[in-house]
Amino acid sequence: MVAILRSIAPAAAVVAVLLDVVAAQTFQRLGTCPTFGCVFPPDQADFLAGQYFDIRLEVHAPVNGSEANGGQPDEKFTFTIAKGSAKPVDAPTFFGVKEPALERWNFTWFEDLFAKDKGTPSLVNVTSRAYRRVFLKEPGEYVATLGYNGDKKTVVNWTVRDLSTVRKAKNVILFIGDGMTTNMITAARLIAHKTINGRYQTKMAMDKFPILGHQMTHSIDSFITDSANSATALYTGHKSTVNALGVYADSSKNVFDDPKVETIAELFHRLTGGAVGIVSTAFIADATPAALVSHTRDRGQAAPIIDWYLNGIQNYTWTNWTGPDVLFGGGAENFFNSSHGGTTFLDRDYYAEFAKKGYGVAQNGTAMAALKNDTKALGIFSVSNMAKWLDRNVYKENLRNQNNSADGLHKDATDQPGLLQMTTKAIDIVTQRSAGKGWFIMSEAASIDKMMHVLDYERALGELLELDDTIRGTIAHLNATNQLKETLILVTADHGHGFDVMGSVDTKYFNAQTEPRKKRAAVGTYQNSGLAGYTMAGNLSYNPGVHFPTTWDPRYTLFQGLYANPDHREDYAVNKDGPREPAVEGAKNDYVVNPKDNPGGIVYNGTLSVDNAQGVHSLTDVPVFAMGPCQELFGGVYNSIDIFFGMAECLGLSGKGL
Amino acid sequence: MVAILRSIAPAAAVVAVLLDVVAAQTFQRLGTCPTFGCVFPPDQADFLAGQYFDIRLEVHAPVNGSEANGGQPDEKFTFTIAKGSAKPVDAPTFFGVKEPALERWNFTWFEDLFAKDKGTPSLVNVTSRAYRRVFLKEPGEYVATLGYNGDKKTVVNWTVRDLSTVRKAKNVILFIGDGMTTNMITAARLIAHKTINGRYQTKMAMDKFPILGHQMTHSIDSFITDSANSATALYTGHKSTVNALGVYADSSKNVFDDPKVETIAELFHRLTGGAVGIVSTAFIADATPAALVSHTRDRGQAAPIIDWYLNGIQNYTWTNWTGPDVLFGGGAENFFNSSHGGTTFLDRDYYAEFAKKGYGVAQNGTAMAALKNDTKALGIFSVSNMAKWLDRNVYKENLRNQNNSADGLHKDATDQPGLLQMTTKAIDIVTQRSAGKGWFIMSEAASIDKMMHVLDYERALGELLELDDTIRGTIAHLNATNQLKETLILVTADHGHGFDVMGSVDTKYFNAQTEPRKKRAAVGTYQNSGLAGYTMAGNLSYNPGVHFPTTWDPRYTLFQGLYANPDHREDYAVNKDGPREPAVEGAKNDYVVNPKDNPGGIVYNGTLSVDNAQGVHSLTDVPVFAMGPCQELFGGVYNSIDIFFGMAECLGLSGKGL
Repeated sequence: MVAILRSIAPAAAVVAVLLDVVAAQTFQRLGTCPTFGCVFPPDQADFLAGQYFDIRLEVHAPVNGSEANGGQPDEKFTFTIAKGSAKPVDAPTFFGVKEPALERWNFTWFEDLFAKDKGTPSLVNVTSRAYRRVFLKEPGEYVATLGYNGDKKTVVNWTVRDLSTVRKAKNVILFIGDGMTTNMITAARLIAHKTINGRYQTKMAMDKFPILGHQMTHSIDSFITDSANSATALYTGHKSTVNALGVYADSSKNVFDDPKVETIAELFHRLTGGAVGIVSTAFIADATPAALVSHTRDRGQAAPIIDWYLNGIQNYTWTNWTGPDVLFGGGAENFFNSSHGGTTFLDRDYYAEFAKKGYGVAQNGTAMAALKNDTKALGIFSVSNMAKWLDRNVYKENLRNQNNSADGLHKDATDQPGLLQMTTKAIDIVTQRSAGKGWFIMSEAASIDKMMHVLDYERALGELLELDDTIRGTIAHLNATNQLKETLILVTADHGHGFDVMGSVDTKYFNAQTEPRKKRAAVGTYQNSGLAGYTMAGNLSYNPGVHFPTTWDPRYTLFQGLYANPDHREDYAVNKDGPREPAVEGAKNDYVVNPKDNPGGIVYNGTLSVDNAQGVHSLTDVPVFAMGPCQELFGGVYNSIDIFFGMAECLGLSGKGL
Repeated sequence: MVAILRSIAPAAAVVAVLLDVVAAQTFQRLGTCPTFGCVFPPDQADFLAGQYFDIRLEVHAPVNGSEANGGQPDEKFTFTIAKGSAKPVDAPTFFGVKEPALERWNFTWFEDLFAKDKGTPSLVNVTSRAYRRVFLKEPGEYVATLGYNGDKKTVVNWTVRDLSTVRKAKNVILFIGDGMTTNMITAARLIAHKTINGRYQTKMAMDKFPILGHQMTHSIDSFITDSANSATALYTGHKSTVNALGVYADSSKNVFDDPKVETIAELFHRLTGGAVGIVSTAFIADATPAALVSHTRDRGQAAPIIDWYLNGIQNYTWTNWTGPDVLFGGGAENFFNSSHGGTTFLDRDYYAEFAKKGYGVAQNGTAMAALKNDTKALGIFSVSNMAKWLDRNVYKENLRNQNNSADGLHKDATDQPGLLQMTTKAIDIVTQRSAGKGWFIMSEAASIDKMMHVLDYERALGELLELDDTIRGTIAHLNATNQLKETLILVTADHGHGFDVMGSVDTKYFNAQTEPRKKRAAVGTYQNSGLAGYTMAGNLSYNPGVHFPTTWDPRYTLFQGLYANPDHREDYAVNKDGPREPAVEGAKNDYVVNPKDNPGGIVYNGTLSVDNAQGVHSLTDVPVFAMGPCQELFGGVYNSIDIFFGMAECLGLSGKGL
């Protein structure tokens, strides 16, 4: 459940995930370790030549439960590596490092829901070693072997991909529509672009990209991912476990000692000296931005994550990281300290920490626009997630009485920049600061996901349209600054939600009925769906070339929904008073319909476990739109990790500096 | 509702759609005609140079209702056409045809649900003319103008696309997964292909295609399509109205006089003399196969549709059509006549009619395999839709006691071929019969859609996997017969269903609980989704290279669903007794949970209008996979009609024979 809460709650409100409080419907002692001998990175991992990573070895000895084997983990396990058919050598020799100390711990887990109901966890004793910051130099196949418990072996095959080392793109901008599926893009197009006789008169910016791909988003050890482990896959080429950022999840109690993998931002910065920009509409410690620089299996570590942006990884020697050139987003509660109600690492004032390192600091949109382009920039524009496009542009009163100003003075953050403004400002800064070395930007439309979670479809589609407008405006800006041809532009998502549109709803008829079964007659399907009402009336208008609905509350709205939902009440109309909250806690861990949400709607029992306040992610492959140098690497159907390898190849990072 | 029923019910059980019994939630006097002057094809229609079409003009005069204007439709309307900036000329002169007779009729419609509840329809009087079998020769822009009611004008812009006239593909095979979305492909991959640490060990055949596109499926006058009007778009380049096959829907009472557009099958046959194969797992009068040769706004005309396959269009001079070279599918009830309980055109025996025209006739899989490859072939293998892959291969007892043998003798159709067997046999026949002129095949996996409609997800995914295996086997067969390089292979869908997978369900735990809210705890999301159980256990196996689940009833099943549903009860387990029937009629037109369906499950109120027995289609763009000559025409995002133009261009049909 933590994964869900994390994605909408303010950072400060979230507790850490502990391996031994797992509330599992499906159960694993430890992901990617089906036997008692665990190697991370596991079998079938792929690497970029020269990419730093840690190795974690674990030997498990269950004390009780169906796997019980005496509870004495082997202390004398062995570990060798071989390249191709060469003779295996021990890891210290292979990597030229010292043998690390033996570690010990234990953890518990539940084998299934029956065990959980009974309160009978299984206890596992563990011995372990970790090799830190190693790398593989030559492309090819490697075999690593963990020997334990006498003749037991865990054999893992690693591949260093043989990629072109010629740099083809000077810059990369990676747009992530968090949770964005093809279904949502189709719905957004419908409400914002006019048709005449089945012909759209305008297209989404994404629709115009020359190359289309699909990426598979599944996690390494479960088939549904969260944004942490999917971002890790996109940025490092290594799929991971739910909630993990830039690490494989181990079983130790310490959430900061899991085996790390170097990210595209770290590699690009270390190997090219180019500039890095990170932009998100989420609180900036959220998973999708955080995964660029953070290394922990617990995405909930918001305060340390902010320190990592600036100072790089703690406790362990790691890659050369000196802070992003641009960091724009929400989440001020992890910048101002407890004297203003915030939660920061060592209770420091992180605005001051960034300023000390030479950053220009902005706390609203006006100040952001005034930031110098030759100076590193921190822009934090609100407490928690930034305001939604719909509230910033249509229902503006919802920005009042939020007490969420970024300065920690509990005023209203009414001057928040949009994603387009943040992204183009970031481009201006990284362009100047990179001094010809190129730049990498990740720009995230975070609240597509956050609003889908709370079944607030209009706000989610508004965020998606803002992303599309940001793409349109970014292309124009790159063109105007003569950078379009040398920049690879990618647009993708990190996972989906099971959302679709199936027709229309006559809200006038719906609201005129009192019986739920009669209200359902307002739902029109097939020919009775008619044409979208969102562009046929209303008086909202925007700049030329910019496409949003002309009204958000037409009589005929969309019949749309998510199958994976909590108890809720549906009225198929925009929520004018701010983001929706479909369910509230009745009894402890038992969420029921929010009495204030859609009071005139139809009540539906949820499909999810009753401890869910929100909807959840889905399995579907998500689209990838590519334009620019190397665009041809991103067509067809592939794994999420291939996005990392495509970007790294295009930037000429394979084997660089070795 | 007819659209839904049509897609699963036996053809004989369905009644025609009449314009004046519309049960509309969203309302149109007549699609694509917002004013009182209607021109079909309407504004923004695209044409292939030389493609035959009809023109229908209507002038409407509402008698009552909000649009009432006296009820006297203009009898003296005018109609002119101009190419580019040339002087407009009257249509008979432009096309070199006689002025058609004036027609008159009237129709009624409801303006909204309130009017329907009150029983107050609006009456419209109509004057009309229809120009039959005309064509546009030169690529470019055309302007057609209907003048009526004094100075009123309806101006429509038509485009004849300027396409390459060089034929690049000898053959085209178009696979249609009816209702298939990216979400479903992702789910099918999950249950049939093994992963190790997030890496699929095998891929879907579709995943290996070099080019990926998305097509927009919406209808011309409503944003949700059915299979009739989406097939019309794919085959003719003209989007149409729900339920319409190869025509624009007019308002006349006669469902056979609507304005026609020539299809890819008709064009290919007329212009190249090549061979045409039509294969479907549906009853063969169903929309997706029927749209290749039929022209009516009512897909429910099953008996005439069978005659059209053989004899071409009735009543009007039209294209040269002499019957497909191969016609394989179900729907025997429209071949054997009333003496065996069937419903056929003029009560003829259509097995005899086809045989008279030289067709070899097969009524089971064994006979199909024995058909000669040099002779036209009719293969009809069951009454109604053919058996599902899951019942043919796993739960075979479900083929018993169906009394559905194709011969009309009411035995069980236990010897039904699979889609792969039908498709490769069709290839063998068209290859030989085309004598080097090339061939066109449409092969449809129809019951992905039909099983999604009834919320039978396992059967739907089984059908999708059969389609994927058919693609795999077809590529191998084309390669073996040395035809792969000269054949364009397309895989797409006609529309979606709002389906996705969001986690897993511990069915053991689910079934051990009695309280619905406790059962919901069995749903595992994110890390608790675990790995798919469908390939981890079981004893089902197949030929090498063929991928289906090794079990269909693992303990941990998929948490999957459709948001647009009728009242139903869900238990998240495969239906071993045959296709699911989620809802049954309680009161008239009021569907409630089927007491026999999933008795141990959780009851959910439907989201759809209570007159729905099934789920409905969705809006989402659907994928297009392309391989072979002209594959590059099918990347990116485009309109469904572009599939027609891509195929026609690749076959060199533009302007051919003029």
